[in-house]
Amino acid sequence: MALRSFTSPASFAKTHKQIQPNKALPLFSISFSTPKCHAYTIKNPTTSLKAKPNFQLEDVIESQQFDRDLLNGIFEVAQEMEAIEKDVSSPGSNMLKGYLMATLFYEPSTRTRLSFESAMKRLGGEVLTTENAREFSSAAKGETLEDTIRTVEGYSDIIVLRHFESGAAKRAAATAKIPVINAGDGPGQHPTQALLDVYTIKREIGRLNGIKLGLVGDLANGRTVRSLAYLIAMYPDIKIYFVSPDVVKMKDDIKDYLTKSGVEWEESSDLLEVASKCDVVYQTRIQKERFGERIDLYEAARGKYIVDKKVLEVMQKHAVVMHPLPRLDEITVEVDDDPRAAYFRQAKNGLYIRMALLKLLLLGW
Amino acid sequence: MALRSFTSPASFAKTHKQIQPNKALPLFSISFSTPKCHAYTIKNPTTSLKAKPNFQLEDVIESQQFDRDLLNGIFEVAQEMEAIEKDVSSPGSNMLKGYLMATLFYEPSTRTRLSFESAMKRLGGEVLTTENAREFSSAAKGETLEDTIRTVEGYSDIIVLRHFESGAAKRAAATAKIPVINAGDGPGQHPTQALLDVYTIKREIGRLNGIKLGLVGDLANGRTVRSLAYLIAMYPDIKIYFVSPDVVKMKDDIKDYLTKSGVEWEESSDLLEVASKCDVVYQTRIQKERFGERIDLYEAARGKYIVDKKVLEVMQKHAVVMHPLPRLDEITVEVDDDPRAAYFRQAKNGLYIRMALLKLLLLGW
Amino acid sequence: MALRSFTSPASFAKTHKQIQPNKALPLFSISFSTPKCHAYTIKNPTTSLKAKPNFQLEDVIESQQFDRDLLNGIFEVAQEMEAIEKDVSSPGSNMLKGYLMATLFYEPSTRTRLSFESAMKRLGGEVLTTENAREFSSAAKGETLEDTIRTVEGYSDIIVLRHFESGAAKRAAATAKIPVINAGDGPGQHPTQALLDVYTIKREIGRLNGIKLGLVGDLANGRTVRSLAYLIAMYPDIKIYFVSPDVVKMKDDIKDYLTKSGVEWEESSDLLEVASKCDVVYQTRIQKERFGERIDLYEAARGKYIVDKKVLEVMQKHAVVMHPLPRLDEITVEVDDDPRAAYFRQAKNGLYIRMALLKLLLLGW
Repeated sequence: MALRSFTSPASFAKTHKQIQPNKALPLFSISFSTPKCHAYTIKNPTTSLKAKPNFQLEDVIESQQFDRDLLNGIFEVAQEMEAIEKDVSSPGSNMLKGYLMATLFYEPSTRTRLSFESAMKRLGGEVLTTENAREFSSAAKGETLEDTIRTVEGYSDIIVLRHFESGAAKRAAATAKIPVINAGDGPGQHPTQALLDVYTIKREIGRLNGIKLGLVGDLANGRTVRSLAYLIAMYPDIKIYFVSPDVVKMKDDIKDYLTKSGVEWEESSDLLEVASKCDVVYQTRIQKERFGERIDLYEAARGKYIVDKKVLEVMQKHAVVMHPLPRLDEITVEVDDDPRAAYFRQAKNGLYIRMALLKLLLLGW
Repeated sequence: MALRSFTSPASFAKTHKQIQPNKALPLFSISFSTPKCHAYTIKNPTTSLKAKPNFQLEDVIESQQFDRDLLNGIFEVAQEMEAIEKDVSSPGSNMLKGYLMATLFYEPSTRTRLSFESAMKRLGGEVLTTENAREFSSAAKGETLEDTIRTVEGYSDIIVLRHFESGAAKRAAATAKIPVINAGDGPGQHPTQALLDVYTIKREIGRLNGIKLGLVGDLANGRTVRSLAYLIAMYPDIKIYFVSPDVVKMKDDIKDYLTKSGVEWEESSDLLEVASKCDVVYQTRIQKERFGERIDLYEAARGKYIVDKKVLEVMQKHAVVMHPLPRLDEITVEVDDDPRAAYFRQAKNGLYIRMALLKLLLLGW
Repeated sequence: MALRSFTSPASFAKTHKQIQPNKALPLFSISFSTPKCHAYTIKNPTTSLKAKPNFQLEDVIESQQFDRDLLNGIFEVAQEMEAIEKDVSSPGSNMLKGYLMATLFYEPSTRTRLSFESAMKRLGGEVLTTENAREFSSAAKGETLEDTIRTVEGYSDIIVLRHFESGAAKRAAATAKIPVINAGDGPGQHPTQALLDVYTIKREIGRLNGIKLGLVGDLANGRTVRSLAYLIAMYPDIKIYFVSPDVVKMKDDIKDYLTKSGVEWEESSDLLEVASKCDVVYQTRIQKERFGERIDLYEAARGKYIVDKKVLEVMQKHAVVMHPLPRLDEITVEVDDDPRAAYFRQAKNGLYIRMALLKLLLLGW
């Protein structure tokens, strides 16, 4: 008899741990100035690359909970998922049969939701969906997130939470007896996006050590580039170039963190020169919604750094262009047909990363 | 060959009955002053507890269709569902494989919807979802509910209907050739909530005879407490205490019905005294939306009877606190960790009751 | 090993064709004045009725891509689907196990969405749903349809697209490496509705040759009647009667097309006389939204031609009433119980047609 609710590895680990160390901590802060590489769900990270980590992954809440060994472990599983996903009759396609994932989305994000739901279904699992929990659910009547979690955990085996408030995922994980995955909590974290970005660099370039990375566009507001800078800093010999309009420059907390971590970085206003040196040009969308009524500033910032044919011409043959999507015109469509345009492959890698995380949280290593 | 649409027990019973007695009846009224214990879907209730009822449950529309024997039969099946739900590899987990449930929700209710959809999927069935049929569907173009039902019954094996109009579920059931479950129709009925409440009392206290029940909070507007009072009155030696602000007192129809049914009841303004005597303290939310612009009355009513540590202190050891959820602050969070806080277990029991009903409607006893 | 993404027949055909002939074409026009019977997805239509077409159906985009042989092939498969749908334990119920359909709906249409999702699930496939992609997805941030398609094709095996812009489905199909089905693109096409209409005539009357068809109601704005007229014209000895208020008469492009195709047609203002002659009376809803502020014109048009008991009295015994639904009062409810009222059977036929198309696109003939 395979007991569902109490012996799935993450649930067992969650319900049997004697101390929940984060219960008394203040809500999660997005500042990286005090890096916590070994956060609460990682007790004993292993050091050998091809070995299973000797701990159970309990929740996926923030980039800081991952170290290199854990990342490598997840990436190995993600790569196994590529084969399962391609083969409709693979036995792996049934590994999550009987398991139920609840996608509790307090703000709509069709792309992220479909990616998680596809991941669950590609492994034979089932899904309960809420596309717009904020408007449609008891939250509208004033119910706390904690109460909602306590109810939904009774109907499912794992919760994927998207929320508009920073720290919501950590609160949910502290309440839930089943695993919680953070699918973005407001200006806070979006750890699966960070994982898929690093995984994409590894898959596209073939390594993570010694990567030269150009971060382009809205570096002030994009949680994506902040998380990526944080994670890539774990690897040796990294060089990062920041290329952004003045109004949306990378903030000091990340710069300080990189310096302390021994990562070389510099700011540049010459996209072509940076592109010619980098392994990865990571473009981002200028987020109009952050400019309020200053449409003039937005328009100026938006047109400044565009990845187009000219950028491709100076890029090295092995290098790639990435983007977290959606894009507007910061990458021109003429780039799409170039083999170095990796952004749709990157979106696809989100599927493999999420398949891997669902497998690890529900079945263990 | 297992024919789906015509020989599933409820469909067969529905399409082969010669008279549909309710077709000419006026729309369902929420008044309980003329109780109809043996309503139209119950032809020959049995009297032996452990035997299968010798009739087919066709639809689940209103509390009045249930009598004690039917409740006991459903509760036995619900308890079997607890084992199935816990074991991911249980054969029961596939009993509804190939069956399709349509959740037709004309007003959003994420909690109820997820509970039904989880129930269906825990038994191996599949789901078609409409989260907001009122806004998104042909209803917006003026289609009648009956026409919608005639279309949707062609795509599914059972319909779970949530509607904003009292009587909608009865109209749907009269039209549909497949079973219909009422998941709440406006100010009308929410029979699965009533069933899970009674089931929870049975599971928590161990019996239904001789229960002392304190109903607290908004007794005027809450269909939950009205239905619970109606159902519990079927059992012997019941005592009910009503504890509510004056503006939301229990209405006379239920009081009259209880008196006629031989149920002892009294009103009290002393929550502590009532709590010390009861097996079950059933707290409810004061529904702000019923007070219109009289926010002052709402605020006064809202703070009057709170279940907190002080109430727990006077409650007996075997007694429990229940609440239909969502709650605001009418039960303080300090109560949550007490083993007598039964409200999240109560929400979970909704899953077992709905699994049982789906099984009974689609496969029979 | 059954490779999913690259060897499903339609995907294989799509990704291996050397020329994509429509890439350079202007966006699809709804004018039928230049009929294109052999459109881009039909390379070598067969001529023998009971043989498999010797080409792979790649996408379902517009009525013009179908010819008689292809229609007959699809209808044969649809009829096989009727048996599969009725038998919960049929092996056919698992034929799409492991396949994932994404319903990408940019405008809500619950009826169409549920029909497609039911079709997929009746064959054992799984579904990713977006009920309202326009409001909830990256489209709101300015992402192009093409980018959305490139992302969603990474998460699924087939895309069902509903869009508010004419030509959207053709653009999506040109982008996607997986099959795309048009579930209605604005004022453009709704080809599965057209197929189910013709299939219904065949199932109800027993043949398609020599049909006498009365098209009633809003003939100017209804894409349904336009597509039906277009498809039925492929069969010999067709006679069409147009019965409509003056403000919503059939447009000249269809009339010219019918004349060129050798189809006899006439306009009439005598519904009873037409009904007495026809095999099929196809009633439609007058679309209020097309009249703007001229409510007076709408009200006049709306009441003019009603299918009621009097129409039934003059209709032949073998004839049927059809309607694409939803209906308001253009068919009175008293008609519903007559065996010649075929409109709910017609809705059900949509399920069989969509099951057939999903099977053909994912598994081939």
